[in-house]
Amino acid sequence: MRPSGRAADQLRPMKFTRNFTKHAEGSVLVECGDTKVICTATVVKGVPRFLKGKGQGWITAEYGMLPRSTHNRVDREAARGKQSGRTVEIQRLIGRSLRAALDLKKLGEHTITIDCDVLQADGGTRTASISGGFVALADAVKTLVDAKKVKENPIVSQIGAISVGVYQGTPVLDLDYPEDSSAETDMNVIMNDKGGFIEIQGTAEGEAFSDEHMVGMLAVARKGINEILEMQRQVLADDAE
Amino acid sequence: MRPSGRAADQLRPMKFTRNFTKHAEGSVLVECGDTKVICTATVVKGVPRFLKGKGQGWITAEYGMLPRSTHNRVDREAARGKQSGRTVEIQRLIGRSLRAALDLKKLGEHTITIDCDVLQADGGTRTASISGGFVALADAVKTLVDAKKVKENPIVSQIGAISVGVYQGTPVLDLDYPEDSSAETDMNVIMNDKGGFIEIQGTAEGEAFSDEHMVGMLAVARKGINEILEMQRQVLADDAE
Amino acid sequence: MRPSGRAADQLRPMKFTRNFTKHAEGSVLVECGDTKVICTATVVKGVPRFLKGKGQGWITAEYGMLPRSTHNRVDREAARGKQSGRTVEIQRLIGRSLRAALDLKKLGEHTITIDCDVLQADGGTRTASISGGFVALADAVKTLVDAKKVKENPIVSQIGAISVGVYQGTPVLDLDYPEDSSAETDMNVIMNDKGGFIEIQGTAEGEAFSDEHMVGMLAVARKGINEILEMQRQVLADDAE
Amino acid sequence: MRPSGRAADQLRPMKFTRNFTKHAEGSVLVECGDTKVICTATVVKGVPRFLKGKGQGWITAEYGMLPRSTHNRVDREAARGKQSGRTVEIQRLIGRSLRAALDLKKLGEHTITIDCDVLQADGGTRTASISGGFVALADAVKTLVDAKKVKENPIVSQIGAISVGVYQGTPVLDLDYPEDSSAETDMNVIMNDKGGFIEIQGTAEGEAFSDEHMVGMLAVARKGINEILEMQRQVLADDAE
Amino acid sequence: MRPSGRAADQLRPMKFTRNFTKHAEGSVLVECGDTKVICTATVVKGVPRFLKGKGQGWITAEYGMLPRSTHNRVDREAARGKQSGRTVEIQRLIGRSLRAALDLKKLGEHTITIDCDVLQADGGTRTASISGGFVALADAVKTLVDAKKVKENPIVSQIGAISVGVYQGTPVLDLDYPEDSSAETDMNVIMNDKGGFIEIQGTAEGEAFSDEHMVGMLAVARKGINEILEMQRQVLADDAE
Amino acid sequence: MRPSGRAADQLRPMKFTRNFTKHAEGSVLVECGDTKVICTATVVKGVPRFLKGKGQGWITAEYGMLPRSTHNRVDREAARGKQSGRTVEIQRLIGRSLRAALDLKKLGEHTITIDCDVLQADGGTRTASISGGFVALADAVKTLVDAKKVKENPIVSQIGAISVGVYQGTPVLDLDYPEDSSAETDMNVIMNDKGGFIEIQGTAEGEAFSDEHMVGMLAVARKGINEILEMQRQVLADDAE
Repeated sequence: MRPSGRAADQLRPMKFTRNFTKHAEGSVLVECGDTKVICTATVVKGVPRFLKGKGQGWITAEYGMLPRSTHNRVDREAARGKQSGRTVEIQRLIGRSLRAALDLKKLGEHTITIDCDVLQADGGTRTASISGGFVALADAVKTLVDAKKVKENPIVSQIGAISVGVYQGTPVLDLDYPEDSSAETDMNVIMNDKGGFIEIQGTAEGEAFSDEHMVGMLAVARKGINEILEMQRQVLADDAE
Repeated sequence: MRPSGRAADQLRPMKFTRNFTKHAEGSVLVECGDTKVICTATVVKGVPRFLKGKGQGWITAEYGMLPRSTHNRVDREAARGKQSGRTVEIQRLIGRSLRAALDLKKLGEHTITIDCDVLQADGGTRTASISGGFVALADAVKTLVDAKKVKENPIVSQIGAISVGVYQGTPVLDLDYPEDSSAETDMNVIMNDKGGFIEIQGTAEGEAFSDEHMVGMLAVARKGINEILEMQRQVLADDAE
Repeated sequence: MRPSGRAADQLRPMKFTRNFTKHAEGSVLVECGDTKVICTATVVKGVPRFLKGKGQGWITAEYGMLPRSTHNRVDREAARGKQSGRTVEIQRLIGRSLRAALDLKKLGEHTITIDCDVLQADGGTRTASISGGFVALADAVKTLVDAKKVKENPIVSQIGAISVGVYQGTPVLDLDYPEDSSAETDMNVIMNDKGGFIEIQGTAEGEAFSDEHMVGMLAVARKGINEILEMQRQVLADDAE
Repeated sequence: MRPSGRAADQLRPMKFTRNFTKHAEGSVLVECGDTKVICTATVVKGVPRFLKGKGQGWITAEYGMLPRSTHNRVDREAARGKQSGRTVEIQRLIGRSLRAALDLKKLGEHTITIDCDVLQADGGTRTASISGGFVALADAVKTLVDAKKVKENPIVSQIGAISVGVYQGTPVLDLDYPEDSSAETDMNVIMNDKGGFIEIQGTAEGEAFSDEHMVGMLAVARKGINEILEMQRQVLADDAE
Repeated sequence: MRPSGRAADQLRPMKFTRNFTKHAEGSVLVECGDTKVICTATVVKGVPRFLKGKGQGWITAEYGMLPRSTHNRVDREAARGKQSGRTVEIQRLIGRSLRAALDLKKLGEHTITIDCDVLQADGGTRTASISGGFVALADAVKTLVDAKKVKENPIVSQIGAISVGVYQGTPVLDLDYPEDSSAETDMNVIMNDKGGFIEIQGTAEGEAFSDEHMVGMLAVARKGINEILEMQRQVLADDAE
Repeated sequence: MRPSGRAADQLRPMKFTRNFTKHAEGSVLVECGDTKVICTATVVKGVPRFLKGKGQGWITAEYGMLPRSTHNRVDREAARGKQSGRTVEIQRLIGRSLRAALDLKKLGEHTITIDCDVLQADGGTRTASISGGFVALADAVKTLVDAKKVKENPIVSQIGAISVGVYQGTPVLDLDYPEDSSAETDMNVIMNDKGGFIEIQGTAEGEAFSDEHMVGMLAVARKGINEILEMQRQVLADDAE
């Protein structure tokens, strides 16, 4: 029995709100149970120095938590003058995952920055950031397509992400904070809409996990990600936006 | 005629939403036109080193803008490793202003941190932070009173803040971004509910201002702050909270 | 009765020494009672990146205290690797105030940096820095005019500054350290030679201040600044310099 | 055909040299083909603040590359004043993996720091660091056991690690730099001597990977790690040490 | 012929002004030709952590240049967030040299910080800092002796310093900036009043120097330092102080 | 009697291993007793900004210690975000010394970076870095000569370095750690193959040193450096390289 009463393969209620703020090219509030993250996508002309003249674009991500998005206040990283190791690890994961959505050649020399800022944390902030970030990215790319700044839509894959774990011996989908803090294993799975894996990061917490657990976790992850991909398609198809 | 069509002494629509996030002792979304700021108040036992053993508490504030809260993305300060001079200046102002709300002796050895994070900026983020921060502070203090961790309510003044300016020669209330960027003078006024000034910061932008302008700005500021103080009282009186 | 025995509207003895050091384009030691600040002005060709190609110049200021300029030694900011919030706030104020002295268009693409370094502190270092910084700025501008690097003298206003406060209920001029540390209100006033306000920053320390106090403080500030402006004119007119 | 001519499931020649330097409690040079990493383990009494009084020990890891361990010189992180995101990510992985080797309660209030410094890089530095780090850790723990500073040997699992990937469509073991830079997928696998997974990090580089690829990669990883665990046992059993 | 017209073994005019500022336990303006440095000595109770409980005191030094103490403005180190390598090197030299003046056991658990801040630079700032720093140190120690906070005067040696060099083939004393920038060799010599060497740092600039040059440089250094030691004794003997 | 039983003018066994790692243009492991340092030389096209367009090259050095190269672990400077004063001082010395080996004009617009990383420390790491760095530099310069990227061999001097000291009243050569930590004086001497001094840095530790000590120290230094220069010549002449 999960603390939340959910079935082992059941997502929390999830919601994408497009155009959540007004300035960004893409701005999405993603809610996954009590986890709430603002994902904005910013498009600028030009690329980082290491890509100058290579005829391709770039996507990068930054991640932050509001100091009191968590049970206890965490120090503001801007005040400490340093991003934590956890933050660095997460924003690199988000960036790698979302770069898999695009043909960077087709993006041309544009850089898109995905900012994921956690308003409220209740487990799964990094995978919510990726799922929400994809929607913000799609909206930002649309502004380029509409303005004819790219010749062809550079989006080649749809990207979704979810956390899974082994909780009291059972593979479960979409860990919330109470589960996350006591799960034996925690795995983040990022997939595309062709069913391929983009990234898998599984960590044993306390006890090693078996091949069997892995197969079980990947099965529930696949089911959950398919539901998320469907929700993304629906919200992006919404004419009212 | 103001760009927004407002009268010279008219506030933008303003709204305080209490309990906006779930973890903080006080959490308020303050909206002032299109300016939106989350203000949270965090209470911890203990005081900074310079106050150890003095039998009093402390209030401090931190301020940040989400990178894409503005027209163009601003660098994430956590990534740059440094808060900007503007940020430092603002958070010192918020902290000083809200310390005037309390008798720090009555607060006992507790520290309250007010985090003001701008989701969307359209002028007046620092004064919105103070007005919203006061409501979050009041909620946080209530948790101390309710838990009998303080003997007496330490709040001695209600604090409200607004920006005023001289726009095309006329003193106007509550500058939005289009006005702010072209006003001749910009002044932030912070007052308490006894009509006293807590802080005044007026800056000539391009042209010096006269005694007459100052009198005019202070008059509209006083009117606006009285309306804000009334809104704070209403939202704090709300039983449903 | 003030600790120093001065009248409520009486300045401390004040002195400007031009050409205090030999390398800078402008170098002034300003003494205001026991407060001593070296203000140097450095002129370089070129402007910061955000002004490139706009056909105008720039003035910026930096402020520092020698570690033992104060009663107790303060940490050397270079060793701590960070300027304090107070320093940042002060140097932004000095920069804004002195930019009001010039028509930046007429300055052409030059940058003038005003360095204000406190040798000895006894209250009022930021306003002394502005008053002394103006003299250093005038000398530096003169080198540009004399070398015909600007077509027209870009100085359009003379700038003076002083601190005022409410001490034991009375508005007083030019707070020294003993007054500053016990005043109820502290206000820095920056004005030009047309009697206009450039910046006003008033802060209640402990108790809010009234309209009446404000009128009183501005009156003594105006008197004091007029005396400072006259001293600046005299020292700048000195042929021997 | 692999660039090195190795079979798909063949490790590079691998060697552990214990007591490589003389000061550390554990000091191991691990060589994996041309990849060479010094792993040292340092034991100190006491634990980080967040573990004070919990009656357990801690293991942490740091990772660095000598500036010219790579084809082109990389900036010295000490000179840049900042560890790169990649470094942070790697040292967190090493620390998590090696903590799985111990019962931290049995370690008592000791902290062991594993320093992994890359002398020469040719792919697989992070997994080599973990495999070599385990040997250094074992030696360091032995000093505690021999000195009777712990009651019971705290090592509960042996830890080995290897990278695998999909190279030209085939799952291959132990990527060297030429393979690593052109592999479609790169996965780091960390396992213990009971055949359980400690951590899996798989990243698609360019193309998503399938369930089938994953099964193939895990199979070769398991074979390679078993060989590494056997080598670790042999070197640790060596009486001459 | 030297640019200044001085004889090869002639010092520039040198002057020590005690009590230059009012807050420090020792405050000396040292002038050596156009080089002007404020040296202050600050005494605090207690020692750095690495000396806790060893029953001895400590002396440390910090060095800084006002940004416009030089021909061209140098960046303010506090603003850059970092002391330069040159600064670090110099302040370590000053600290080592002045520690040789005292029996640190007799100093008891006090820390004396010598701050050397260059108002105007014209060569020889580091040796001027040491010579002036000694006088400030002596004054600071006197406050401890007078207050009976130390049982016995801890000063065991008088310390003086000067730069020498090889200029156009000839050993010369007390390089000023024009000589310093074209000398073949630059050597800083620190000695005590028993004629012993405390520190010697000689650097060939462009061409190696011979034993003969070294003997010549040390001879003029010894002469110059003897004169400086005599000046220190005179200024410290001055009753009026 | 020295702790190691060596004669007063006897070097520790010293060894240079060229091509120690494979990527660098020059890579040398220098061993001096138990002190072991990797010196690599990296050549890049171009020069630092302050030399742009001056038609000359540059040599710079960086120094680091592996955290557990010493008896007790020292903090990793990359993790602390700052190089220590000692590190800065040492790398400036190495750079200055090795620049004396070359005619920088003949080097053309190339920059050579010498990285000296201490694997194991037992006294004399800075002089070992210089002696080993020279060999790495020579190898790196050879790649430029062989590739005809310089017209003429820019090496004009061979550089060797050693530490000497006064130990129990006697000048001794090549201090190891036990001597270094109890010597009365410590002096680093850098010379070229014409017998000229490049740099001398002598520091009294506890007691001032006399002219006589200096003469004695320089005599043993000269003997030791001549032996080192001979070893450098032999290893560089080795055909097998």
